[in-house]
Amino acid sequence: ADIVVLPGDGIGPEVTAAAVDVLQAVATRYGHRFSLHTHLIGGSAIDATGKPLPDDTLAAARDADAVLLGAVGGPKWSDPNATVRPEQGLLAIRKALGLYANLRPVRPHAAAIGASPIKSHLLAGVDLLVVRELTGGIYFGDKTRDADGASDLCRYSIAEIERVVRRACLLARGRRGHVTSVDKANVLETSRLWRDVASRIQREEFPDVTLEHQLVDSMAMHLLSKPRAYDVIVTENMFGDILTDEASMLAGSLGLLPSASLGEGSVGMYEPIHGSAPDIAGQGIANPYGTILSAALLLRYSLGLSQEAACIEAAVDSALDAGVFTADLASEGSAVSTREATAAVL
Amino acid sequence: ADIVVLPGDGIGPEVTAAAVDVLQAVATRYGHRFSLHTHLIGGSAIDATGKPLPDDTLAAARDADAVLLGAVGGPKWSDPNATVRPEQGLLAIRKALGLYANLRPVRPHAAAIGASPIKSHLLAGVDLLVVRELTGGIYFGDKTRDADGASDLCRYSIAEIERVVRRACLLARGRRGHVTSVDKANVLETSRLWRDVASRIQREEFPDVTLEHQLVDSMAMHLLSKPRAYDVIVTENMFGDILTDEASMLAGSLGLLPSASLGEGSVGMYEPIHGSAPDIAGQGIANPYGTILSAALLLRYSLGLSQEAACIEAAVDSALDAGVFTADLASEGSAVSTREATAAVL
Ligand SMILES: CC(C)[C@H](C(=O)O)[C@@H](O)C(=O)O
Ligand SMILES: CC(C)[C@H](C(=O)O)[C@@H](O)C(=O)O
Repeated sequence: ADIVVLPGDGIGPEVTAAAVDVLQAVATRYGHRFSLHTHLIGGSAIDATGKPLPDDTLAAARDADAVLLGAVGGPKWSDPNATVRPEQGLLAIRKALGLYANLRPVRPHAAAIGASPIKSHLLAGVDLLVVRELTGGIYFGDKTRDADGASDLCRYSIAEIERVVRRACLLARGRRGHVTSVDKANVLETSRLWRDVASRIQREEFPDVTLEHQLVDSMAMHLLSKPRAYDVIVTENMFGDILTDEASMLAGSLGLLPSASLGEGSVGMYEPIHGSAPDIAGQGIANPYGTILSAALLLRYSLGLSQEAACIEAAVDSALDAGVFTADLASEGSAVSTREATAAVL
Repeated sequence: ADIVVLPGDGIGPEVTAAAVDVLQAVATRYGHRFSLHTHLIGGSAIDATGKPLPDDTLAAARDADAVLLGAVGGPKWSDPNATVRPEQGLLAIRKALGLYANLRPVRPHAAAIGASPIKSHLLAGVDLLVVRELTGGIYFGDKTRDADGASDLCRYSIAEIERVVRRACLLARGRRGHVTSVDKANVLETSRLWRDVASRIQREEFPDVTLEHQLVDSMAMHLLSKPRAYDVIVTENMFGDILTDEASMLAGSLGLLPSASLGEGSVGMYEPIHGSAPDIAGQGIANPYGTILSAALLLRYSLGLSQEAACIEAAVDSALDAGVFTADLASEGSAVSTREATAAVL
């Protein structure tokens, strides 16, 4: 299998290196051949080529079976008035590969919930999957800037909503059969359309799945006050961005959470939901588990290797059970390095 | 002083009645004369007049010194395809009165933090004030619907950003002198403008105030993991909507939180941040404290009666200290009614 690795910026290279080690160990143990190719994206790509998504990176990704990405961005490239920005590379590759469904599972691990700001009794049994729409909405709409002000257009087509809701319902079928669709239908036109389309898809195609609608503001509360009430949560791009970072607090650390971005095509992209964390980059202390778990999702969704995926997940579970915590999770003085955490998984 | 009362829908009439009782008690005790006039807004206004904001409601509000509002909306009027909706009344009155700054203070009360999903040790000393821009952004931009899809335009003018950031900086001066501005400048053009303008206003006009920028997704985490780090948080309309509902969980219940909406004009509007809660409407069990505390803000900001405001706040504190909790805060079986909670404050 061909896997393109895009380390990106900040801690990206450190955490993707960890995940690559784990993939290689899986290859050895199960007798697979993974052919790994590293390419540039984000700020480091801007530095080397002037572009946040160089053509050969995109070409390689299109030809690959799967893409493993670290993170992009950093203060070096964050002049908000720059015309070329690292994040454009990430948005462009998501769009170019048609990766409209971003799966972000949140299942707090017993050993890590001590690090969560949420009371532990609320977290037992939490197992939710956010399906974030990833190639539409205000992220991709027309942007303008003039002497008076600026604008961003949020647009959704019916087809864009249908496909991501369908994906969420399909995923719910393999889980507890419940979908919560999040919008702001009391104010936004795109949300009213979202609600209509979600209701219709469920009614016509998934009568076996239950669908509930929530306003995004209420959801920001309920996610904290009753996280066990949710199974699959489907929502538009920006709401999904905000709600999943919030939901990461249920798991104790953003550093633990993986994601899978899928489209209709065969190539999927896998990345931790954390960013490039420039404040700790280069120190070898980043949490590699989110990226390692993203590699597990890669094996499951893009390569059909569910046993191997489960093996990685079990190894991360054991490392957490054994209290092998990086600084984001550890109590004072007991933190391990990225390498030590990776070694524990290996 | 002339005060317009807009009970609205659902639990709106119950909680505004409680706040009116408290205002009347203040009038008696301090020898003021408050002339209170009740008008229609929201769903009940649609039922009676066909309009969510009848002309005489707006006229009365314009002539008043302050407006006290309950909440609007409910399942009866929530067909997303209806052309007239209760929420339009709320948005229209905010816009017509020029109430661009919505102040939402969050200061968890020791007696209520048991009800918060957040671990108690994180909550001691939390005292933050969210200043939400209230008359711009995607709530008010052009909306379209066509055969293919729908759109909402998010627009901000420089002037709209300047005035709300200025208000936030002024408020910070009277507090701990720190402002956190929240945007999504790595993706949105309106956010890049927001960041530029916020930086300039602080630099040119408020060198004594410190300003930090946060991305909305990170903020959704940090609000939970280190709520004590924040003083004044200023952000655009929709981010403010989401983040304040999230922040309400720090206080234990949405039902506790008041808000003040201010503009350049003399009239301010005061409302709890909770909604119309149709599920519990008419049962006499709604938490009146958020609306009573909104009445305190009304006295402070619109009538200049800070001593009277502090008196109401102290009375609510005492009621909470004494464990007088409505169902949203109480443990099983110990909840009091709206009337009993109000009586405790009185
Ligand atoms: C870096 C940024 C563009 C990105 C996003 O908002 O999509 C990130 O926050 C994420 O969630 O993957
Ligand atoms: C009812 C709705 C339009 C309103 C808003 O989103 O502004 C409410 O959620 C609020 O926060 O005051």
